[in-house]
Amino acid sequence: MLKGNAVVGQSGGPTSAINATLSGVIRGCADANKCGVINTLYGMKNGIEGLLSERLVDLCSHFFDEEWLKTLETTPAAALGSCRKKLKSYNDDAQTYEKLLSIFKKFDIRYFFYIGGNDSMDTVLKLSDYAKNNNYELIVVGVPKTIDNDLMATDHTPGFGSAAKFVATTVSEIFRDVNVYTVKAVTIVEIMGRDAGWLTASSALASLAGAGPDLIYLPERSFDTEEFIEDVKAAMEKNPAVLVCASEGIRFADGEYVGSGGQSGAVDAFGHKYLSGTGKVLENIVKERLGCKVRSIELSLPQRCAAHISSKTDIDESVGVGKSAVSLALSGKTGVMATIERCDGKEYSVSFGVADIRTIANEIKTVPERYINARGNGVTEECMEYLKPLIVGENDVKYENGLPLHVIIK
Amino acid sequence: MLKGNAVVGQSGGPTSAINATLSGVIRGCADANKCGVINTLYGMKNGIEGLLSERLVDLCSHFFDEEWLKTLETTPAAALGSCRKKLKSYNDDAQTYEKLLSIFKKFDIRYFFYIGGNDSMDTVLKLSDYAKNNNYELIVVGVPKTIDNDLMATDHTPGFGSAAKFVATTVSEIFRDVNVYTVKAVTIVEIMGRDAGWLTASSALASLAGAGPDLIYLPERSFDTEEFIEDVKAAMEKNPAVLVCASEGIRFADGEYVGSGGQSGAVDAFGHKYLSGTGKVLENIVKERLGCKVRSIELSLPQRCAAHISSKTDIDESVGVGKSAVSLALSGKTGVMATIERCDGKEYSVSFGVADIRTIANEIKTVPERYINARGNGVTEECMEYLKPLIVGENDVKYENGLPLHVIIK
Repeated sequence: MLKGNAVVGQSGGPTSAINATLSGVIRGCADANKCGVINTLYGMKNGIEGLLSERLVDLCSHFFDEEWLKTLETTPAAALGSCRKKLKSYNDDAQTYEKLLSIFKKFDIRYFFYIGGNDSMDTVLKLSDYAKNNNYELIVVGVPKTIDNDLMATDHTPGFGSAAKFVATTVSEIFRDVNVYTVKAVTIVEIMGRDAGWLTASSALASLAGAGPDLIYLPERSFDTEEFIEDVKAAMEKNPAVLVCASEGIRFADGEYVGSGGQSGAVDAFGHKYLSGTGKVLENIVKERLGCKVRSIELSLPQRCAAHISSKTDIDESVGVGKSAVSLALSGKTGVMATIERCDGKEYSVSFGVADIRTIANEIKTVPERYINARGNGVTEECMEYLKPLIVGENDVKYENGLPLHVIIK
Repeated sequence: MLKGNAVVGQSGGPTSAINATLSGVIRGCADANKCGVINTLYGMKNGIEGLLSERLVDLCSHFFDEEWLKTLETTPAAALGSCRKKLKSYNDDAQTYEKLLSIFKKFDIRYFFYIGGNDSMDTVLKLSDYAKNNNYELIVVGVPKTIDNDLMATDHTPGFGSAAKFVATTVSEIFRDVNVYTVKAVTIVEIMGRDAGWLTASSALASLAGAGPDLIYLPERSFDTEEFIEDVKAAMEKNPAVLVCASEGIRFADGEYVGSGGQSGAVDAFGHKYLSGTGKVLENIVKERLGCKVRSIELSLPQRCAAHISSKTDIDESVGVGKSAVSLALSGKTGVMATIERCDGKEYSVSFGVADIRTIANEIKTVPERYINARGNGVTEECMEYLKPLIVGENDVKYENGLPLHVIIK
């Protein structure tokens, strides 16, 4: 078994469960340390960006520190810090790869764990290829993370269940709120998800509490203003308070984002267009066309950091997939991502698997057709069955001064 | 002791604790029913609006139903429904008063409990005056409720503590989120509070978790764009991720709302201007002047309905003030509001008191000067001491299918 040190990093947008996965990696490495395989586990501050400037923290002091690890598991956002750096190809930026190699050698790093979304898996792919081509023995394992649930090869992604629980809970509470009055009113909730509607679909779970949205619009279907107005009118016939959940990423038939009206066309480091304002645009459409009271609510950042309402199923699995990544590494797998597989059977259960990184990096898993109703304004029973178990269970969040306790890694 | 029936209603904007107060009134009336004083307790659907159309529900079946009452106490929004109806003066609308009187007589209503904010206390005042002037023996007691904490004569208002806990928790989670990157970025959190900055001030409590905002702007001080830009620049010198909390109600020195830019000047039934967009305006100012990454987040409705993160102190006191309102009524007090008084001593404790409704109705209690720092961009230690105990404690929220369990009153 390859002996040496390990490094773990977090990358991309934070989630409520990304630190649970970090805890899983620490737990796995602690065991490997006991067996004499992994000597030191370093944490890279701000992902690959920090690694390049050797900003490393020694995480060994937290091995077997159960209280600290438990608190880490319900601490939102990347405790090691994150980055949005995308590695260029070797041909375009050989220098960065050479620098990384020299750092790996300097710190005798043989295991590289990277917790992130599809952009981060691209880094895993490039690094594992580079190490192989340069005959440096390095095991590179990706660990999935994204509230968007849009990674291939895994039944669902760590972080999604907690975001879904926040969305469903918040939608159920908003439902109670908007139903106190008797006047006609439309409330539009804008939910994250650039290209995949998983998180928006999870708003349907609020119906399990009798408090679900009337209409749900996902980016997988093109948005039609006339149909939307018809849908709202029909819903209002049944109940004066109409609740609409819409993905930030819905587009018109011509491909233009509904929310791009007020936008500058600015893009992030990966060329993704900055989105916002979808709810506002729908609010204005309703105001103009129906003239009734209307309000839009953008759920915004709390979707990915409201760890106080994280899903126990998600946190447990996030720890599990982190530990599983270490097991995969120890068994010599490289250029792979740890996955979650849903087991067959009536009762929900999962096992942890593995997938070749090449099938994942830069790919997006969208909500399948069979999960969306014919009209394109709601989800199917099959979708509900898929989503239901992911938000089950509450975590034992510790509080101090009335506020959730978080762990800080200096 | 006056014998007969009682009616309870909820009015104005919902809170996470308004049903806890309803539970308190039910608990109080259950005891009074046992003693043979109150026969039936009716709930008016949608406040005074529903009372006028005799939409009453019999609440006696819930007397002593501990499980139901406990779930009611963590159910957000007005379970009886609410309204925004403001009674005109008797001279302007004698008909409505006469109708109400006939309904009181028809249902032998002798006790009238109204849970609401300052607008609702105006209803309490008018009704008690009218009953007196018409020699109809009616005890009218107001029970405070508002996330704004802007009612006179009470140390704080039921509902505020839970909203403050949601705000402080969410701000602490947003702090973790925005601090994962190393790039310069400003995040602006817009918080409810039209005229009083109490809820915005409570964002400072996040500093107890080491995750407080850098800058806090309350409507009690006029907002100066140049000072704001200076403040943001200075904060950025210390930490690249700048977190700003601003009240929706901040105004420029000339009295114009910062957030009124994109507004139509529309007003609600009480003549209050609809506000929104304050965060967006500040976002645009930062974008234009500093050119760095900037995002605004409007906390919106969850501030008043996120009952899953309600404050135990608030819920316990909200039940207590509801019960206290019944005691006041049984002792013959009318035209009054039940209040919360903070006891002297090092340990936080409260007792329940009473205030003449005339000192409360249509008045607003703002954040005092000594609670705001000299620069007007933060709160003082004295303010922190006042706020701290109000968010302490977590409620035993029941979950089903991963969602908070709510009670519904049909």
